[in-house]
Amino acid sequence: MNKASTGHFFEDFSLGQVLYHATSRTLTEGDISLYTALTGSRFSLFCNKEFAQQLGYEKLPVDNLLVFQIAFGKTVNDISLNAVANLGYAEVEFLEAVFVGDTISVVSEIIGLKENSNGKTGIVYVHSKAVNQEGFLVLSWKRWVMVNKRHEGMQNTFAVQPQLSSQVAFNNIVVPQNLNISAYDHRASGESFSLKDYQAGEWIDHIDGLTIDNSEHTMATKLYQNNAKVHFNQHQMSSSKHQKRLVYGGHIISLCRTISHNGLANAQWLSAINGGSHLNPSFAGDTVYAATQVLEAQELGSGIGAMRLRTLGYKNSTWQELQPQFERALKERSQLPSDFVLDLDYTVLIPSQL
Amino acid sequence: MNKASTGHFFEDFSLGQVLYHATSRTLTEGDISLYTALTGSRFSLFCNKEFAQQLGYEKLPVDNLLVFQIAFGKTVNDISLNAVANLGYAEVEFLEAVFVGDTISVVSEIIGLKENSNGKTGIVYVHSKAVNQEGFLVLSWKRWVMVNKRHEGMQNTFAVQPQLSSQVAFNNIVVPQNLNISAYDHRASGESFSLKDYQAGEWIDHIDGLTIDNSEHTMATKLYQNNAKVHFNQHQMSSSKHQKRLVYGGHIISLCRTISHNGLANAQWLSAINGGSHLNPSFAGDTVYAATQVLEAQELGSGIGAMRLRTLGYKNSTWQELQPQFERALKERSQLPSDFVLDLDYTVLIPSQL
Amino acid sequence: MNKASTGHFFEDFSLGQVLYHATSRTLTEGDISLYTALTGSRFSLFCNKEFAQQLGYEKLPVDNLLVFQIAFGKTVNDISLNAVANLGYAEVEFLEAVFVGDTISVVSEIIGLKENSNGKTGIVYVHSKAVNQEGFLVLSWKRWVMVNKRHEGMQNTFAVQPQLSSQVAFNNIVVPQNLNISAYDHRASGESFSLKDYQAGEWIDHIDGLTIDNSEHTMATKLYQNNAKVHFNQHQMSSSKHQKRLVYGGHIISLCRTISHNGLANAQWLSAINGGSHLNPSFAGDTVYAATQVLEAQELGSGIGAMRLRTLGYKNSTWQELQPQFERALKERSQLPSDFVLDLDYTVLIPSQL
Repeated sequence: MNKASTGHFFEDFSLGQVLYHATSRTLTEGDISLYTALTGSRFSLFCNKEFAQQLGYEKLPVDNLLVFQIAFGKTVNDISLNAVANLGYAEVEFLEAVFVGDTISVVSEIIGLKENSNGKTGIVYVHSKAVNQEGFLVLSWKRWVMVNKRHEGMQNTFAVQPQLSSQVAFNNIVVPQNLNISAYDHRASGESFSLKDYQAGEWIDHIDGLTIDNSEHTMATKLYQNNAKVHFNQHQMSSSKHQKRLVYGGHIISLCRTISHNGLANAQWLSAINGGSHLNPSFAGDTVYAATQVLEAQELGSGIGAMRLRTLGYKNSTWQELQPQFERALKERSQLPSDFVLDLDYTVLIPSQL
Repeated sequence: MNKASTGHFFEDFSLGQVLYHATSRTLTEGDISLYTALTGSRFSLFCNKEFAQQLGYEKLPVDNLLVFQIAFGKTVNDISLNAVANLGYAEVEFLEAVFVGDTISVVSEIIGLKENSNGKTGIVYVHSKAVNQEGFLVLSWKRWVMVNKRHEGMQNTFAVQPQLSSQVAFNNIVVPQNLNISAYDHRASGESFSLKDYQAGEWIDHIDGLTIDNSEHTMATKLYQNNAKVHFNQHQMSSSKHQKRLVYGGHIISLCRTISHNGLANAQWLSAINGGSHLNPSFAGDTVYAATQVLEAQELGSGIGAMRLRTLGYKNSTWQELQPQFERALKERSQLPSDFVLDLDYTVLIPSQL
Repeated sequence: MNKASTGHFFEDFSLGQVLYHATSRTLTEGDISLYTALTGSRFSLFCNKEFAQQLGYEKLPVDNLLVFQIAFGKTVNDISLNAVANLGYAEVEFLEAVFVGDTISVVSEIIGLKENSNGKTGIVYVHSKAVNQEGFLVLSWKRWVMVNKRHEGMQNTFAVQPQLSSQVAFNNIVVPQNLNISAYDHRASGESFSLKDYQAGEWIDHIDGLTIDNSEHTMATKLYQNNAKVHFNQHQMSSSKHQKRLVYGGHIISLCRTISHNGLANAQWLSAINGGSHLNPSFAGDTVYAATQVLEAQELGSGIGAMRLRTLGYKNSTWQELQPQFERALKERSQLPSDFVLDLDYTVLIPSQL
């Protein structure tokens, strides 16, 4: 029998099953520079050691989304190698900062399973946890993916769908240890907007667009040791629907976060992702843009505020062109046009005032 | 009002205005490796710790041009987001070595302003300074850019054009602290040419060509956190004159410096850029070449010499093909053909003899 | 005379000649991250500090092939700048681990020379050795390359062809200092196969394919400071046979090793390359696959086994399609079809049992 694995299929998962993912990963200064080069990120907390020290950190923390991408990457080989689609995220919580030299290990539990009536696929609900080398939980998240069956046909197993919160409530938001906002320098961060300047309902058009190229999105995905074939294998994808490699959805999240810096430069710390979905695939050659709506805002004390945001990612189109279509779709409860690639609901920390 | 910034326009600048640029940046080992991967640089002072130690440095210094690119990148958001063209550089002085772990902050002063008679643009003269986390000045430079006006029309403001030296004089050249050339090992550097081997007027055809691809030039520019749109946004650039993303001019400078290693391997330290202009834009797919003329040479003492060089960068053409055209253009005082992309006048340090 | 070097030609080499290669290189965390991003490597010994510590290493070792690529890169400027083809490798031995901060220097001796009867080229046999900053030999290898003559015509020099072993014998395999397999955790490595699970003659189809893009293969080759023109200069290569830049053969070796992780995840340490040849060139756009045959296996003691493997790299085709063609070619002693790009015979260390 061939020793190379073809990954798990729907039948291979069972409720309560625990998967210890291989290839724990030590984070390095190289990962940080590559993340900057691959996304263009400019949040000061993750690129300016002096700024991080003013905020209470002895060392430069690693960007939350870089931690997420690497932790997520660990789960692919066991969970989603045969996934048809990554359906959604919930309860993604960033609990503690991760630093250069830390080693991240990831373990997942199967918390839900549901066959699809086509007999070809099923939905797998997974709760994953990333811990550092000292065993501290740094990141916890749930996601559900549609996974191929090994053999077609209904098994008529009992469907279990977990209860998933639509939001990490503000009073469950964990302010990372040591974070001290008192010496926050907005000249260093690049903007003077703080919690009090944002209004619920307000939209921010982040203006800037980033074009994706093949080497760049595949390098990002390889850096995360995410080995999903659809991103890498043009020979195989040539006979797929789009005939092209798909850009890893996580890369789109990172690009939209980078783009959102223009208007949200002080939203340094990503606390939680309340929910998210990849609305359409992206390909090399696409230019990604983003716009954000402020959903809610709340003081957490100690000069720190939390803000719940909805960031829409879209491609090859400006917000001026798309906003009317978005509002109409909202009103008519119809689907968003195919220009939209990401709908992300998340919570950030931001100084209460500056 | 949209919280995302569209950057400064000509009307936003005033004489003597001081701009503290955001996003100070800590340099890491990752930046060094990426610079090597993106440019192919082979100067030993920046990639060989043992060699650097022999020259008096406890740690590996960061390549001067990498420091320049990152420092320059800081200024883009405030100075040149709405620039039509980067017109020139002068008095670029590299004063002290920068090391891994250092944080570079940049501040600029507006030293000149001049409206253009078309009523659409104006020229902004800027003096920028980069300091490390201890406040030491490591790099100082002047540049002038043509910037769009927010509103068309002449304001008939008083034009102020600063006096800019055409050269950082040899006796103003700062030999970086600790630099000790006595144990210089030319077997390690790769060539045996020292100051005494170069003649004023001599040309060096650096022979090698480097082809630029999209992912690579955009990754370089993102690494520098330079957020000028023209390099990244293909969707927007599709309706521009060239219908393509432009390669960041600084990347061309870095590529030409890398290419110049073949014939100038001992010109390890870049001391000053006396003047420079980007003659034509470059695009993905272009192959860049370089040739250098030795302008002047002088002993500085302690076994160190300074050499003033003129490096021409050109594309998709060899020096053999272009030299006659260059000489004719020089003689006829006509414009250089569009193959030429860079004309850089700079000063390097090199051992007096080996 | 132009100071830029055009490299050595066949006439420039003499038997017993020793070449001290320039540009010794200090390895950094950035190199490690880039290697991961450029190849997708997932061997735990090189990306998980905790795992490396369990195996006896205080620090994370640098991937053997990254050490090889960088050491090899040093030799290009002196040996193969005018090479027509890299004909083969033999006796490649990885003797000690290399760590972040180590500086690698390379010296080569010419051990054989043979003119070709066409009068245009000759074969140069080279023995290269890489040492770290303390002078310890970390890597030794032999290769032979076909090099252009400066001037056409036969010199009828005495041909010397060195005796090259077809294998680094199992009892010459050096187990790297400190390697202690007793606490090996196969949950961390990702597979449970150990020496006892592999049978001589067994084939592993590694399944996964990786598509190569231009920025990525040129960035890898520039990271290694390998300055062979054929990889970088599209302007020049446009008039070559394939009209395209060639992918550096070493990059193909690295990709095949990465791909082989699926089925060989516990073959962490590459001990030796017994022989290897690049069967056909690869280009941007090609998708590389690999399959491996187990040739021999042997216990070395202390719970460590050695396994000799033959990995075939091929492109744009699956093993299912190619295996019959491969077996027919073997039987008929005919050439492998042009889909095949690499034939590598090497020896790995692997736990005796888990």
